[in-house]
Amino acid sequence: MANRAEGKIIQQIVELVDNPNVISFAGGLPPEDAFPQEEFKEVMAQVLDGKITKALQYTSTYGFDELRVQISGYYKSQGSPVAFDEILVVSASQQALDLISKCFINPGDKIICQLPSYVCALDTFRSYGAELIGIPMDNEGMRIDILEDRLDNLALAGQAPKFIYIIPDFQNPTGLTTSLERRQKIVTLAQKHNLLIIEDSPNRELRYAGQHQPRFMDLAGTDYVITLGTLTKLFVPGIRIGWVAAAPEIIEKLMLLKQTTDICSSTLSQIVAVEFFKRGLFEGHLEKIKDLYRDKQQNMIDALTAHMPKFVSWTKPEGGLFLFLHLSENMSARHLLEFAVKRHVVFVPGDVFHCDGSGEHTLRLNFSYPSKEMATKGIKRLAEAIDEYYQVLLNRPQQEHYAPLEDFKSFEQIY
Amino acid sequence: MANRAEGKIIQQIVELVDNPNVISFAGGLPPEDAFPQEEFKEVMAQVLDGKITKALQYTSTYGFDELRVQISGYYKSQGSPVAFDEILVVSASQQALDLISKCFINPGDKIICQLPSYVCALDTFRSYGAELIGIPMDNEGMRIDILEDRLDNLALAGQAPKFIYIIPDFQNPTGLTTSLERRQKIVTLAQKHNLLIIEDSPNRELRYAGQHQPRFMDLAGTDYVITLGTLTKLFVPGIRIGWVAAAPEIIEKLMLLKQTTDICSSTLSQIVAVEFFKRGLFEGHLEKIKDLYRDKQQNMIDALTAHMPKFVSWTKPEGGLFLFLHLSENMSARHLLEFAVKRHVVFVPGDVFHCDGSGEHTLRLNFSYPSKEMATKGIKRLAEAIDEYYQVLLNRPQQEHYAPLEDFKSFEQIY
Repeated sequence: MANRAEGKIIQQIVELVDNPNVISFAGGLPPEDAFPQEEFKEVMAQVLDGKITKALQYTSTYGFDELRVQISGYYKSQGSPVAFDEILVVSASQQALDLISKCFINPGDKIICQLPSYVCALDTFRSYGAELIGIPMDNEGMRIDILEDRLDNLALAGQAPKFIYIIPDFQNPTGLTTSLERRQKIVTLAQKHNLLIIEDSPNRELRYAGQHQPRFMDLAGTDYVITLGTLTKLFVPGIRIGWVAAAPEIIEKLMLLKQTTDICSSTLSQIVAVEFFKRGLFEGHLEKIKDLYRDKQQNMIDALTAHMPKFVSWTKPEGGLFLFLHLSENMSARHLLEFAVKRHVVFVPGDVFHCDGSGEHTLRLNFSYPSKEMATKGIKRLAEAIDEYYQVLLNRPQQEHYAPLEDFKSFEQIY
Repeated sequence: MANRAEGKIIQQIVELVDNPNVISFAGGLPPEDAFPQEEFKEVMAQVLDGKITKALQYTSTYGFDELRVQISGYYKSQGSPVAFDEILVVSASQQALDLISKCFINPGDKIICQLPSYVCALDTFRSYGAELIGIPMDNEGMRIDILEDRLDNLALAGQAPKFIYIIPDFQNPTGLTTSLERRQKIVTLAQKHNLLIIEDSPNRELRYAGQHQPRFMDLAGTDYVITLGTLTKLFVPGIRIGWVAAAPEIIEKLMLLKQTTDICSSTLSQIVAVEFFKRGLFEGHLEKIKDLYRDKQQNMIDALTAHMPKFVSWTKPEGGLFLFLHLSENMSARHLLEFAVKRHVVFVPGDVFHCDGSGEHTLRLNFSYPSKEMATKGIKRLAEAIDEYYQVLLNRPQQEHYAPLEDFKSFEQIY
């Protein structure tokens, strides 16, 4: 497993954010000035006043009971019937992905994912020896014709995949949302092939336009769906709280695996989360950050429209944290990154999100973290970097454009 | 891995503690009234005042820099040279065991451990497919003659174990400490066979009598040793903070695995821990709980001496949280538990700590959690339960004493 671990990228991104000279579109962080600081202080003071002994002690591996009640209530309030015993509290979504992998993946198992998809999920699946099968997307989500074809071929070969991993809402990295029709067709295929769907939707609540689509959980229930949730984007990352909603038998298996993984998630964090739920503080905070991010997204789209050359295009998501850029097909985002870093602006090259290593000419931009002013400045710098790279390409023989990745030695250092 | 996960025990223990009618000697919990509540409130207020934006954001997967500095300084102050880049912050020791297993264990690998040893470590190793080889202990630690013999035989068979897992100080479950001579001999054998030693010492600081022995890390350095540390027993469990000290190349591998496991440990918890280190608050707290636990240990030994029948014996550890009891050889602690539960007193049967399933006539008692009054009452009840069980044994044909475990259906329910 240690040898399968690849990505240093998120780690390096987090470190770059500390460098004040660099404009980073690379992370997926909420900006610190949007944290609900006053509410947090107030809630923490109350927790430490009335519940300090509980907050500092171990709690159940399943999670603090009251938090499981609140999370179940949150789903019910949205019309998704998820019971108390269908909730496992985890140390944010990444742990959910790890426990699910531990539970379901044997080395060599096939996993269906979107092409592209969230790099840290792909890395987790890979660390357990999974073989990833990426289904290309269009603006509506996974291409159903390709998914159907793949599933039929795998069934014929007796190689049924373990599950379909899907980020349905404002997907990481593309920002795209799976349409209702596609959701229904994916459910039909999952039921036909008796497959679990892992629904990972950390940014679902961050919708700036349009209407919510039903969750996969609503369409197919816990017989076919495991849904992940997290407070990371809805609230703050630093307390590390998320959850899994699934059938009770699956929750029990995951709990036993969590026991040998970290015994329980921070009790203090869980009790603070309970108080936020109880006081209805998430709703108000959510409205605030949605206004902020909607504005930042529009600002970035305006800057791209103003500064990018014609051959660059980008997605226009109805929510989330990211835009996904397409350069011209003969360009490499990793190569572009060298020109960008010289100008103190960084992003994540799109190939890391592609389980088959494709997507060289794509890149992911985060708009939630940088201020509007910095974002505008950063996009200008990025446009200049693209210009310079383009000029270099014009003066170079065609075969050098696709230098093998080994040539980009500097990538690990600069990132 | 899901099928290999066995132990529901810790989970059930934590739940039992919530039942006020039960006197529990089963957990390994610090008592809530010993938490440094006032100091915690003060530190938290200061953290939220001055560092709230850092505390609520993601941090590096390696850990918050200042905490790594403090932990490194803590080792250096004790004469153990552990550098900043030899520290990985984790979500308490259990996560360290999980990451080390992920890093080193392939299915079928052999692991050397003490017989008995910490059940949740054994379960983690098993979940990764390890085959456990338990080395019997006497009062000085692992029996070196047996260890030497096993290592030689494994080497001859070309089946070198992956590492030696050892709890050198106030071991869980026995409370025993490995003597200096044994430590030196284990190091010599590890060096001869080129084996890593995993040194897990969560209770090291809880010494009530006698002198500290050098750490394995001090005797053999990071070339041969990975040392685990935690704030769970030294401070509080609810913030879930521990660390691994190891060679930088191992730390980097573990960091990459942590990235796909939970990205980072709670930033808020880490910053609180930094402040506790900086203000020197651990030392004062430690003196307080050492006085408390020393007193509780003596109280339990007094109660055992007063109430137990002659055929029951127990360890007299110089620190830690546990006493280990030996019943007469024809008794089963699981069977005894049924008599104990009727009297509302519980403990952990010793066989769960024995990787080979032996130790039926042993049991573990925790003395840190219950009050002295409750402990005395609980030991009386336990002695009555032993009496009743003994009477039953006298009146039963011998062959029924060793009923197979399947007969103890009630175990899962009552525990």
